[in-house]
Amino acid sequence: MKLWQKATGNKKEVENFTIGRDPEFDIILAPFDVLGSMAHAHMLTKVGLLTAEDNATLQKGLKEIYYEIEKGTFEIAAGVEDVHSQVEFLLTERYGEVGKKLHSGRSRNDQVLVDLKLYYRSAIRELVEEASTLFDLLVKLADQHKEDLMPGYTHTQLAMPSSFGLWFGSFAEGLSEDMGMLQAAFDLANKNPLGSAAGYGSSFPLDRTFTTELLGFADLHHNVINAQNSRGKAEKTLAFALAGMAGTLNKLASDVCLFMNQHFGFISFPDDLTTGSSIMPHKKNPDVFELMRAKTNQIQGVPTTVSLLLTNTTTGYHRDLQLLKEEIFPAIETLRDCLSMCTFMLKSIKVKKGILQDPFFKHVFSVEVVNDLVLKGIPFRDAYKQVGMDIEADNFSPDQSKISHTHEGSIGNLGLAEISQKMENAVKGFNFDKIDAAYLSLLS
Amino acid sequence: MKLWQKATGNKKEVENFTIGRDPEFDIILAPFDVLGSMAHAHMLTKVGLLTAEDNATLQKGLKEIYYEIEKGTFEIAAGVEDVHSQVEFLLTERYGEVGKKLHSGRSRNDQVLVDLKLYYRSAIRELVEEASTLFDLLVKLADQHKEDLMPGYTHTQLAMPSSFGLWFGSFAEGLSEDMGMLQAAFDLANKNPLGSAAGYGSSFPLDRTFTTELLGFADLHHNVINAQNSRGKAEKTLAFALAGMAGTLNKLASDVCLFMNQHFGFISFPDDLTTGSSIMPHKKNPDVFELMRAKTNQIQGVPTTVSLLLTNTTTGYHRDLQLLKEEIFPAIETLRDCLSMCTFMLKSIKVKKGILQDPFFKHVFSVEVVNDLVLKGIPFRDAYKQVGMDIEADNFSPDQSKISHTHEGSIGNLGLAEISQKMENAVKGFNFDKIDAAYLSLLS
Amino acid sequence: MKLWQKATGNKKEVENFTIGRDPEFDIILAPFDVLGSMAHAHMLTKVGLLTAEDNATLQKGLKEIYYEIEKGTFEIAAGVEDVHSQVEFLLTERYGEVGKKLHSGRSRNDQVLVDLKLYYRSAIRELVEEASTLFDLLVKLADQHKEDLMPGYTHTQLAMPSSFGLWFGSFAEGLSEDMGMLQAAFDLANKNPLGSAAGYGSSFPLDRTFTTELLGFADLHHNVINAQNSRGKAEKTLAFALAGMAGTLNKLASDVCLFMNQHFGFISFPDDLTTGSSIMPHKKNPDVFELMRAKTNQIQGVPTTVSLLLTNTTTGYHRDLQLLKEEIFPAIETLRDCLSMCTFMLKSIKVKKGILQDPFFKHVFSVEVVNDLVLKGIPFRDAYKQVGMDIEADNFSPDQSKISHTHEGSIGNLGLAEISQKMENAVKGFNFDKIDAAYLSLLS
Amino acid sequence: MKLWQKATGNKKEVENFTIGRDPEFDIILAPFDVLGSMAHAHMLTKVGLLTAEDNATLQKGLKEIYYEIEKGTFEIAAGVEDVHSQVEFLLTERYGEVGKKLHSGRSRNDQVLVDLKLYYRSAIRELVEEASTLFDLLVKLADQHKEDLMPGYTHTQLAMPSSFGLWFGSFAEGLSEDMGMLQAAFDLANKNPLGSAAGYGSSFPLDRTFTTELLGFADLHHNVINAQNSRGKAEKTLAFALAGMAGTLNKLASDVCLFMNQHFGFISFPDDLTTGSSIMPHKKNPDVFELMRAKTNQIQGVPTTVSLLLTNTTTGYHRDLQLLKEEIFPAIETLRDCLSMCTFMLKSIKVKKGILQDPFFKHVFSVEVVNDLVLKGIPFRDAYKQVGMDIEADNFSPDQSKISHTHEGSIGNLGLAEISQKMENAVKGFNFDKIDAAYLSLLS
Repeated sequence: MKLWQKATGNKKEVENFTIGRDPEFDIILAPFDVLGSMAHAHMLTKVGLLTAEDNATLQKGLKEIYYEIEKGTFEIAAGVEDVHSQVEFLLTERYGEVGKKLHSGRSRNDQVLVDLKLYYRSAIRELVEEASTLFDLLVKLADQHKEDLMPGYTHTQLAMPSSFGLWFGSFAEGLSEDMGMLQAAFDLANKNPLGSAAGYGSSFPLDRTFTTELLGFADLHHNVINAQNSRGKAEKTLAFALAGMAGTLNKLASDVCLFMNQHFGFISFPDDLTTGSSIMPHKKNPDVFELMRAKTNQIQGVPTTVSLLLTNTTTGYHRDLQLLKEEIFPAIETLRDCLSMCTFMLKSIKVKKGILQDPFFKHVFSVEVVNDLVLKGIPFRDAYKQVGMDIEADNFSPDQSKISHTHEGSIGNLGLAEISQKMENAVKGFNFDKIDAAYLSLLS
Repeated sequence: MKLWQKATGNKKEVENFTIGRDPEFDIILAPFDVLGSMAHAHMLTKVGLLTAEDNATLQKGLKEIYYEIEKGTFEIAAGVEDVHSQVEFLLTERYGEVGKKLHSGRSRNDQVLVDLKLYYRSAIRELVEEASTLFDLLVKLADQHKEDLMPGYTHTQLAMPSSFGLWFGSFAEGLSEDMGMLQAAFDLANKNPLGSAAGYGSSFPLDRTFTTELLGFADLHHNVINAQNSRGKAEKTLAFALAGMAGTLNKLASDVCLFMNQHFGFISFPDDLTTGSSIMPHKKNPDVFELMRAKTNQIQGVPTTVSLLLTNTTTGYHRDLQLLKEEIFPAIETLRDCLSMCTFMLKSIKVKKGILQDPFFKHVFSVEVVNDLVLKGIPFRDAYKQVGMDIEADNFSPDQSKISHTHEGSIGNLGLAEISQKMENAVKGFNFDKIDAAYLSLLS
Repeated sequence: MKLWQKATGNKKEVENFTIGRDPEFDIILAPFDVLGSMAHAHMLTKVGLLTAEDNATLQKGLKEIYYEIEKGTFEIAAGVEDVHSQVEFLLTERYGEVGKKLHSGRSRNDQVLVDLKLYYRSAIRELVEEASTLFDLLVKLADQHKEDLMPGYTHTQLAMPSSFGLWFGSFAEGLSEDMGMLQAAFDLANKNPLGSAAGYGSSFPLDRTFTTELLGFADLHHNVINAQNSRGKAEKTLAFALAGMAGTLNKLASDVCLFMNQHFGFISFPDDLTTGSSIMPHKKNPDVFELMRAKTNQIQGVPTTVSLLLTNTTTGYHRDLQLLKEEIFPAIETLRDCLSMCTFMLKSIKVKKGILQDPFFKHVFSVEVVNDLVLKGIPFRDAYKQVGMDIEADNFSPDQSKISHTHEGSIGNLGLAEISQKMENAVKGFNFDKIDAAYLSLLS
Repeated sequence: MKLWQKATGNKKEVENFTIGRDPEFDIILAPFDVLGSMAHAHMLTKVGLLTAEDNATLQKGLKEIYYEIEKGTFEIAAGVEDVHSQVEFLLTERYGEVGKKLHSGRSRNDQVLVDLKLYYRSAIRELVEEASTLFDLLVKLADQHKEDLMPGYTHTQLAMPSSFGLWFGSFAEGLSEDMGMLQAAFDLANKNPLGSAAGYGSSFPLDRTFTTELLGFADLHHNVINAQNSRGKAEKTLAFALAGMAGTLNKLASDVCLFMNQHFGFISFPDDLTTGSSIMPHKKNPDVFELMRAKTNQIQGVPTTVSLLLTNTTTGYHRDLQLLKEEIFPAIETLRDCLSMCTFMLKSIKVKKGILQDPFFKHVFSVEVVNDLVLKGIPFRDAYKQVGMDIEADNFSPDQSKISHTHEGSIGNLGLAEISQKMENAVKGFNFDKIDAAYLSLLS
């Protein structure tokens, strides 16, 4: 039976249709539900709606449940509707009537909102950490391969000299820039909705600033309708941030699949990381990167579904919002898997040496030669003409072993220190320590 | 004829297919192209690739063109390929060979990238300003209507008391939160790509930090491949930011269309802002808000197309990127129109007074009455039961004239000052003054 | 160990990342895999690549497995890669070397393609059947409520008289028209890809026309590259068809949510099909229809993800295609659930009688009155003016109890027989009997 | 001033915001608006709402306008709201009061619906014709290059022998299969909505079957609400069909961009169809195909926007629907351009001969050699082992000059006649002649 409902209950068909994947998501939300309840109980006590004694009992009971969740012994009993009911039932079963007092001044709506926001903060943190690990590897690979030249393409056509240092470094800086949208998503998740009740506030004298502090939120959604509307906006912003970072990995994976093609043959991986064929020894199928390309496309599809779920709907809670979880939760997990798998694979990447020394690539050096002449004082038009004529006469043999690019971010000056600094600053901006401190204080 | 191409030229069919809507977009980019060229010429001079005299001539010529663009007398001559060629032709026509020296150490790719980024910065600024104007009006309306109660809905069902103050205020705070993604998009636009050339850097000793300062960029894309890859990422991030703010307006418009329905009749607009019918005097069609709903949906569709254009493509410039303009430029304009039209309409909104005093709405007060009893010391279960029995016995007559909500962000405590502070901080974060100062210095 | 691979095998991390949700999908595909193998074995025998004796053994073994799948006793053993390997292992375990002969002239690619196509045919058939059931109920409700008038809205504004008969009937005809795209998807699924091998055909003298007949396909993809490319195109077309029908249900659900709002109050459902609140007796939350709206939006998001997975990829199999299953399989199930839940709910719908007799609605009759005057011979302009003046003078009292619309498809002439005929023709077009006959023959 | 509105008129800001791109689209709709009016007038006459004399005058006037549109002399006068008003004004100006009688029994809603449907039929026909032209060229190229072998790839890895015949043929058959969805879209466009008025029918005794015949429609939307709801469904279905065919072109363009890469070098185009560089003679930028890839991605994005515009909206006309034109009209034009440009380019494609004779490709023949041994009677496992050992011992030298594939749709048996038959049948299915006959009759 549901806590908030008349005795009649719903027909089984209705239950089945409406419950969806909530049971599996509720287990993910459980620890956050408990933390939210701890803060709520403290606040009720502060404003006089709960006695200090009752609060002490509730805190003790909630802490027990929190550690049961951590140990993996918590589960939602058969017939219990959701995680929120399960926590309340456990409290009531163990400590009596006081368990029921917890729900004063709170609605299921703002309770779920808090759970989701605490979860999103935590999930974003994991993504930031996985991205940082990959970032560090990319910077290391860039440095390691800064002398290994490769061709650069425009229009998928051979164009100019490039290097593996430049290539690895581009994804490192790319990841550092993806942090901006992740920060925007984090900022929305990091605003307290508790106290918005069903979306129109409460006649109880709640102290929302107090729960904001207790849960380590950076701020609160002041307006209670806006707090309710943040359900949807938080998910949409997060979907955008996930799709942004997915785009960076998609390009990396697309490059890998092309560079592993036998006509290129620029990079390779150990046999146990690819799939092949005994009678086609050439074949090293890049399944992991094909699936990374595909999985990042799944993530890039999420904003559409989230937008469809939300658009043209009016102010106020709609049950439609429940399905946002089915879009966002798996997308978070998929992106985390892609990041960690990318790190796993790139640890074993092998790069072909001396690619550009093959005469096949000599024309990618033509601009270099023109520029060299210009730097030696020959007017550009003349230099260009001279090189063009040499090429036409098949009389063009540039030095294909090295190039000297010196400006910021070029092959000879990768700027890895500056890029690393950007990433470090981006990570600091999340201020995860504040959340650690808040949780530590709640659980102490 | 194209500057960068062999004499043969393309077949007319190829020209027509490839040119697309570029001519109209190029006019938008023109002033930014000139500013980018001014910075580039200064930099070439600093590193010794241009004489001070040549630079002085170029700066003079570019300034002239800048003011011609401002006056509206600049146009791209027939047969000239694009804005970049037109500027170079004008310079050469007016000042001779020096005009051709401008392109050293620069490729069409990074030139376009700079133009786009300067334009995006400018466009985001306009959006921030339009959003601020709407924000101010919403805050004013919220304050003005803070006593005007209305019902709040959940599941599109009557639920709790709300107010027009709360309703207007929710969109104000919503807009302030949309600034986060706009800031993320601005940060990407605010990074200098100049010097990345065709995406693989240059063998010229360019000083990219110098052009970064001259153009008022907050930073540069260090890695040159990443600079090139920012074409696409900048647009995608901006598309997300536009879609985010569009979502806020979509909800406002959806509410207005519902509240203007005759069964609700909560709000109205003067006759000359709606369309009606002589023989159906009830009818006040909310065309503007229906189209606002639709236009914000068009904007919310843009991320999909941008993602499709970019996904599964490899590193390096592809001509595909050209079409990003066809998606982003109109979306910027549409959002700006929606923001300004929303302000225009809401200036004339009329709100129905005393809605909740109709007995039709008495049940939305039931939670208020329960809470009142609880605050008077009656245990929640008892209070709930008592109210439930009163309702069942048709013996429920709450005071429907006012409610007393006091917590942060509730009907009685809208927190408009705090919300305004958020918006102010958000706007400050863009630091538009730095750009003004840089342009002033270039043009002085 | 994999059948087709060197002994080394993949690292556990690679396995985990690449396997995805395939095990659960493979169980769905199992019966179709067996049917495809039966046809393939018959064909190999016909062209002399298998002896009649071997074929007899294989048919016997495959039939056994088919019935094990039907009984639910079939499962994929631990360590076995997929359903195809499991079937082959079972055959080999039970009948020896002959089991290995089954794979001649076939690649994993065309085997999976066949499985998918047989599954899609079957899934589309189930959708057609669910849609037919809902269609029949809608026609019945339309007929039952053909006298029950309700207002019709344009711009969400009261406009003209309508009826529940018209409203129910509109979704019936809508469903019949959704069959067109479902037929297009079915036609693609109903083309035989077997024999395309890895996408480039085989040097074995396969008889593809023979397997086409055996499996009851309407046709074959002739070109083998095109057969391979149908992986992706089949899913995309099916995604479109699902999204099309989802759109019809989405509108129905949107209407229901609005009409259940207390300001309208046009329809209702028994208490055990909605959720409510003891102290807000008005409240009947339409959770099922809100979730139907949301689920149909999830389905409408699928085409985007499918397009992202496919776009910008070159000819030939890519591992990316595997993830199409994660998009399409759940979408099929969701649409089936929505259809059957819609039928379940509408069986209990209660419609308010006499809505339009309330004077509140009198203006929706103004066009009726004008038309009546015109039909009596008064010129339109004069009739219009007269009614307009009556309304202005508050002297307008039309007969609100009935209206007389007689043309095809109007309130008084719903055309239910014609609409039913359309649905019947649409269903006949699938020619499901042919498939039944083919399977019966294979399994006999 | 608007025909259907009170004298007040709308504020200029409202006009600007609501008019959108309608004026340019209205010109496209003009001839269809006239045809629809001709049919409507005939029908009004048949049911006695118009005299034979008035009808004769109207038919004469409408025919004049039709030919003015055809000659390009028709335009919408300043201050006239739209094409419908312009036609009515012209009639009234030229023939007096009779012009105003045309609108009886019709609403702006069903008038626009008819215009759109006639236009969609016509646009689909043009697409079918462009697709047929491309199809014919592809079949011709396939036949011409049936002996020109090339490698086939899976996982972007060299896999098996293929041929240009197979490759060209795959897109031919692909196009023939895209006709299915186009037919589904055509069927929806080919249903008559006239008589549905504002979406709830009319009290006039209209004869909708008669206008169905006059306009050459295959059927009518019986239910008038469903007729109105077909606005949106018609566009969505068409968007799907466009996106489907766009997917086929996208793959062709993706292949071309890859095969033009210098590492492949399989195909080329004359210099005046590509862009290049004097000093990088290798470089032949495939701009047309990059833009074809991008334009087909724009088209593939349209279903998302159309779905966003429609979803979660209730029954009945909403002004939102107007913006469907902004999505669909340009998408039709873009697809037509892509089809015709594809034909234009492929007419000049040059294919490299003898690709597979390079020893670089020898391993793609390994499966051929295994199969040859099997066909000679060696058991598969033994044949496979023998070839594997030869390869390992670098003792593998297959005949790389030809292969013998004989089954339906394989390299040696392209099935071009069968594929051509499919296309022919698909085109016949549209029955365009019926429309020609209807229009001829109306205009005679």
